[in-house]
Amino acid sequence: MKNVVTVGGGTGSYTVLSGLKNLKDISLTALVSMVDDGGSTGVLRDELGVLPPGDVRQCLVALSEHSDIVRKLMNYRFENGGLSGHSFGNLFLAALEKVTGNFGKGVEVASEILKIKGKVIPITNDSAKLSMLLSNGKLIEGEDKIQNDADIKICGLKKIFYKTEIFLNENAKESLLSADIIILGPGNYYCSVIPNLIVNGFQEAIKKSKAKIIFPVNLTNKLEHTAGWKVSDYVKDIEKYLGKSVDVVLVNNEKPSPEQTKLYELEEGKGVLVEDDFKDERVIRAKLLSTVILKPQYDEKMKATRGFIRHDSEKLAECIKKIINN
Amino acid sequence: MKNVVTVGGGTGSYTVLSGLKNLKDISLTALVSMVDDGGSTGVLRDELGVLPPGDVRQCLVALSEHSDIVRKLMNYRFENGGLSGHSFGNLFLAALEKVTGNFGKGVEVASEILKIKGKVIPITNDSAKLSMLLSNGKLIEGEDKIQNDADIKICGLKKIFYKTEIFLNENAKESLLSADIIILGPGNYYCSVIPNLIVNGFQEAIKKSKAKIIFPVNLTNKLEHTAGWKVSDYVKDIEKYLGKSVDVVLVNNEKPSPEQTKLYELEEGKGVLVEDDFKDERVIRAKLLSTVILKPQYDEKMKATRGFIRHDSEKLAECIKKIINN
Repeated sequence: MKNVVTVGGGTGSYTVLSGLKNLKDISLTALVSMVDDGGSTGVLRDELGVLPPGDVRQCLVALSEHSDIVRKLMNYRFENGGLSGHSFGNLFLAALEKVTGNFGKGVEVASEILKIKGKVIPITNDSAKLSMLLSNGKLIEGEDKIQNDADIKICGLKKIFYKTEIFLNENAKESLLSADIIILGPGNYYCSVIPNLIVNGFQEAIKKSKAKIIFPVNLTNKLEHTAGWKVSDYVKDIEKYLGKSVDVVLVNNEKPSPEQTKLYELEEGKGVLVEDDFKDERVIRAKLLSTVILKPQYDEKMKATRGFIRHDSEKLAECIKKIINN
Repeated sequence: MKNVVTVGGGTGSYTVLSGLKNLKDISLTALVSMVDDGGSTGVLRDELGVLPPGDVRQCLVALSEHSDIVRKLMNYRFENGGLSGHSFGNLFLAALEKVTGNFGKGVEVASEILKIKGKVIPITNDSAKLSMLLSNGKLIEGEDKIQNDADIKICGLKKIFYKTEIFLNENAKESLLSADIIILGPGNYYCSVIPNLIVNGFQEAIKKSKAKIIFPVNLTNKLEHTAGWKVSDYVKDIEKYLGKSVDVVLVNNEKPSPEQTKLYELEEGKGVLVEDDFKDERVIRAKLLSTVILKPQYDEKMKATRGFIRHDSEKLAECIKKIINN
């Protein structure tokens, strides 16, 4: 039984966990970023003073072995009146935090109700505002603003940090220390992946960990954040935050269809695909692309409707399975 | 295995079901009125167009064999922002109605998630506005208004009815026909109990049913609705709506403490206790009173904070058990 730990946030973690869930002989733990402050989650943080439920919800849904209808329920979004825009699952986690008095405890109860395979652990129990200092001196506070207003590409990034000091959840620390495999991402780089790595105590724990670190590089660049980045840029950058090397770099070598690319470029502009320039023995290349053409859907992190160039959950899981068994 | 069916609404059904849940060798079905249109439930009906979840929620909580924390979660009421006043359990049922496309189906899924012992069935799948015509010609529409504005005591009741024709749920009909025991109430007489009996098809089904009908008479009168009623008044009145006789009249013969009575009279005035004047061989008298002095609590149907003179769940269940086994 290998201990597999994923580190990420919303949609990216959903994808990788949905596949890993079906692997046998692994014990699965999802560490989840706690920075979302827009949309339904943002309203709940402001009005109820709860921790952000959105990303945790997506991981819970990915790992739930309950019926499809329960998974649909968790993602159901109210459309009218005072509840408009709230996802039911967010309200579920917010109410559980209130009833148990503690977000982490609430997630445990939710995991039991939803019959989760594995564990979902918020990266921190502290309330945290993600902040970014650009090289031109501009300070951007809040994940939602960073998501939408931080033009790192033009202004340059000086520092990504938390406004107040926040600490690694003790359970998260233990799972990093006992992990055999740690998977970083995929997902929104600055708003889902990196926010985990900069929590106080994360770097120390991952340095101590003897786990093999797998880094499935994103398929696409986000225009204002990482436009033009190649595989080598991602590896070099993430190792800065880790304080150590990754062991396996997972790179997709399957081309998206013209239709997929077109849908994506409509929103993100030309040249969004991450180019594979990395000549290194740590690279494993495989066909990892989802060929399902999904209708453009509402993406919580993007706060917008978008097309899809996504990892395929099963291909990703199959590839990770081979690495685990090697 | 005896089929036991309760007919009622919110708090009264909660009380009787909480006790019956612990009896062995019975199959339990709760038929629940669908008239609430005030408070959190009213807002959800107006804004989302769903059926009223409040009374069903209380019955689900009574029969849930899940952990205490899950039962607390279902009753948790949001206190701030746009969600203020909503009970989480109401949102749960509203979202399930949306996801399944059908309130009855939603209740089934909720029952599975909450690990319900027995079944909870809405009395009708139709959306219904409870209406009341007073003898002075005044028409009152909506349960919330009837609850608060219908001074039947002074004006006299001509008719209680639904504004549009609504029909008995097919599953409710089947459970009435296959029942060995049917328990009417206790509960808010005109706003929880009678609304079930006037649904199209109810009278026909209960007439056909061979079940023994038990009528636990309310302990107290509601000032504007039934002030001054004695046991015989309740029996005579409910038999009008049933179209047949009840078989057992369950009457409490335990006196409330001065403290309990005082708390109650503060809100409802003097003489709220239902006097036992009924000389009839169908009467069974027993100590049925809850002696727990609860702090005044928020009562959903009353939309107010109130004291308690309540049936004791266990005493009521013990008494019903003896009747079942006779």
